[in-house]
Amino acid sequence: MQEPRTLNDSPLQFDLLWEGQDTRARVGIIHTPHGDVSTPAFCPVGTQATVKTLSPRELVELDARMILGNTYHLYLRPGADIIARLGGLHRFMGWERAILTDSGGFQVFSLQGLRKLDDEGVTFRSHIDGSEHRFTPELVIEIQEKLGSDIAMVLDECPDPLDYDYNREALRRTHLWAERCLRAHSRADQALFGIVQGGIFEDLRAESARVLTGMDFDGYAIGGLSVGEPKEDMLRILEHTVPLLPREKPRYLMGVGSPEDLLECIDRGIDLFDCVLPTRLARNGAVLTPTGRLNLRNARYKEDPTPIQEGCRCYTCQHFSRAYLRHLIISKETLGIRLTTIHNVHFMLQLTRDIRRALLEGHFGEFKAAFLANYRPADPLAREKNLQARRRLLRGE
Amino acid sequence: MQEPRTLNDSPLQFDLLWEGQDTRARVGIIHTPHGDVSTPAFCPVGTQATVKTLSPRELVELDARMILGNTYHLYLRPGADIIARLGGLHRFMGWERAILTDSGGFQVFSLQGLRKLDDEGVTFRSHIDGSEHRFTPELVIEIQEKLGSDIAMVLDECPDPLDYDYNREALRRTHLWAERCLRAHSRADQALFGIVQGGIFEDLRAESARVLTGMDFDGYAIGGLSVGEPKEDMLRILEHTVPLLPREKPRYLMGVGSPEDLLECIDRGIDLFDCVLPTRLARNGAVLTPTGRLNLRNARYKEDPTPIQEGCRCYTCQHFSRAYLRHLIISKETLGIRLTTIHNVHFMLQLTRDIRRALLEGHFGEFKAAFLANYRPADPLAREKNLQARRRLLRGE
Repeated sequence: MQEPRTLNDSPLQFDLLWEGQDTRARVGIIHTPHGDVSTPAFCPVGTQATVKTLSPRELVELDARMILGNTYHLYLRPGADIIARLGGLHRFMGWERAILTDSGGFQVFSLQGLRKLDDEGVTFRSHIDGSEHRFTPELVIEIQEKLGSDIAMVLDECPDPLDYDYNREALRRTHLWAERCLRAHSRADQALFGIVQGGIFEDLRAESARVLTGMDFDGYAIGGLSVGEPKEDMLRILEHTVPLLPREKPRYLMGVGSPEDLLECIDRGIDLFDCVLPTRLARNGAVLTPTGRLNLRNARYKEDPTPIQEGCRCYTCQHFSRAYLRHLIISKETLGIRLTTIHNVHFMLQLTRDIRRALLEGHFGEFKAAFLANYRPADPLAREKNLQARRRLLRGE
Repeated sequence: MQEPRTLNDSPLQFDLLWEGQDTRARVGIIHTPHGDVSTPAFCPVGTQATVKTLSPRELVELDARMILGNTYHLYLRPGADIIARLGGLHRFMGWERAILTDSGGFQVFSLQGLRKLDDEGVTFRSHIDGSEHRFTPELVIEIQEKLGSDIAMVLDECPDPLDYDYNREALRRTHLWAERCLRAHSRADQALFGIVQGGIFEDLRAESARVLTGMDFDGYAIGGLSVGEPKEDMLRILEHTVPLLPREKPRYLMGVGSPEDLLECIDRGIDLFDCVLPTRLARNGAVLTPTGRLNLRNARYKEDPTPIQEGCRCYTCQHFSRAYLRHLIISKETLGIRLTTIHNVHFMLQLTRDIRRALLEGHFGEFKAAFLANYRPADPLAREKNLQARRRLLRGE
């Protein structure tokens, strides 16, 4: 077993370029073996070695700097060994920029067929064919090293965020697994992030931050948020937890989020985000605009000659009308999802670029206020329903 | 009612650059209001105002010069009036190059719910919602003028190609409708092609060619082939019919075809083709190569690091392995269909470019022999099954 790495070994340099006075927001650059990622940054999600419907070339044009790959999915299909033999995930999917992989923990704990959980690992059934598999901290590190992502994540237990006793017990295991992941990790060109857990409970979050920052991770994620808890709890926990993380390392909020979430969470000191929102919305016919979401299935767009968003510089808005996009969506043409995905991913990436500039130019407060005044968030009931569904998954219902 | 146009009015100039001695093949350029189309040419099919999965930009990169739009589909959804109000089909779909529209006849005659057919027109039910509609020669011209395609087609009756009596009766109506289409057609920036019918019967084809070439069309299509008849019949009818068409006008074989069909039909004097084959194959996981079709679902490609086709210059072959494409297809990821569609469309377009060069350089015979020696056509049984299905549709079964 290897010795834990020292700080100087880190394959990931994080330059902190700017820190706020009235905000915990900061601006930085993460230098990875596959290029620089300006922060705050939003990572589109490429679950199965593809950001759904988009080509790598389109992602480069959108100037995505880092995407997320899902260890659970890639482990099951096509398998980490195949990807390794084909040169690693970057080469396999033709993506030359940075990749972050999750540990698979969230997917496994969201599965119906969770079989057995003990300190050694977790046994689960594949959603594809029902076959039984077991993840251990060592195995998820091995898989991620085979994938060759720039940033790997530790295996963590993902409990219902509102259940204190479960979170308390899970924390012990999460910390044990974090330690084992760190020891197992050996790939010198791959960073490893710890994940702070503890649900919506400040004492548990504090304990988790204390234990994990005592280990030498290259960055810290906050897990177990935006998984069913009220939004006030999410923001409260961020306010409580972020100050406990080391200033000089990147902070990553997993699975978040919406445009309004990004503003609030960047304001509270988060550097890095990933979320399926822009790609998933597109598959439902919905697009993001500065005034909120539009659903292009709506008959009102049937003859609308305007782009999704006036002034938007994405390929979709430069070339196509809402009427055309609606026609494609109603006609179940793939190009409709592709073009709305391009716009939605552009929207999220442009938002982070705009936030970064506002921070550097010293008017983030005004920018945030103006954006939120203009932006009508998604129906709170729909949001609630969505979060409850995620929470039920984590409870195994 | 307007007077038929004279030759000089034609919005479409066809320059014949080269004609063969040992072959009926020729090389030319069709000048359209939306750019030049070098012939022989293959038109990808954009049924619902999109060549399935591809963006207009990708089609330009593939150097497609003309695509086909389906009048039947666009009339039903989103409707010709909407497209007209949005600036016509080119602008609606963001395609600045040439478009050919069919008349909708083939689709209508393939529908189960054909209601009524008389000399005035044909009544049918929408495949989308079962609503009743009626196409007349005048209406299909009006629709195509609203769409604003560069080349419009006359309404024709599409019978089972093996039924002599039906073809004989249908021919009378097809010719009547051709005349009415020509009279109804008024758009000065749109060409109109007649369609020679007559099934597999040489006397009927001769009669159809005689009647239609007596009318002033800008080009001539041969319809009712590759719809269920044996391949020998298709080639025999081409050999018989092409010499009856005017040398100075483009000849278009509708709905054809496979790589081997293109070679045989170009050899017999055809200039223009359209076919869903490259896009449809891609949706089934199949790709075209110089040695025949491959189905990427096959487990043998699971770890294959090579591109679909060594040396191919398409985006897909330049960046992605068979193993990655197989993974996308097996995982039902849209990008898999997109990337294989890019390759398949490139394959067909490159084949026509290679044929054109071989013709101009005087070695078409060798090129054709070498290609056919190397290329294993699709399973004849599968082909037969496919054609029989099309034939049953035309018999209303």
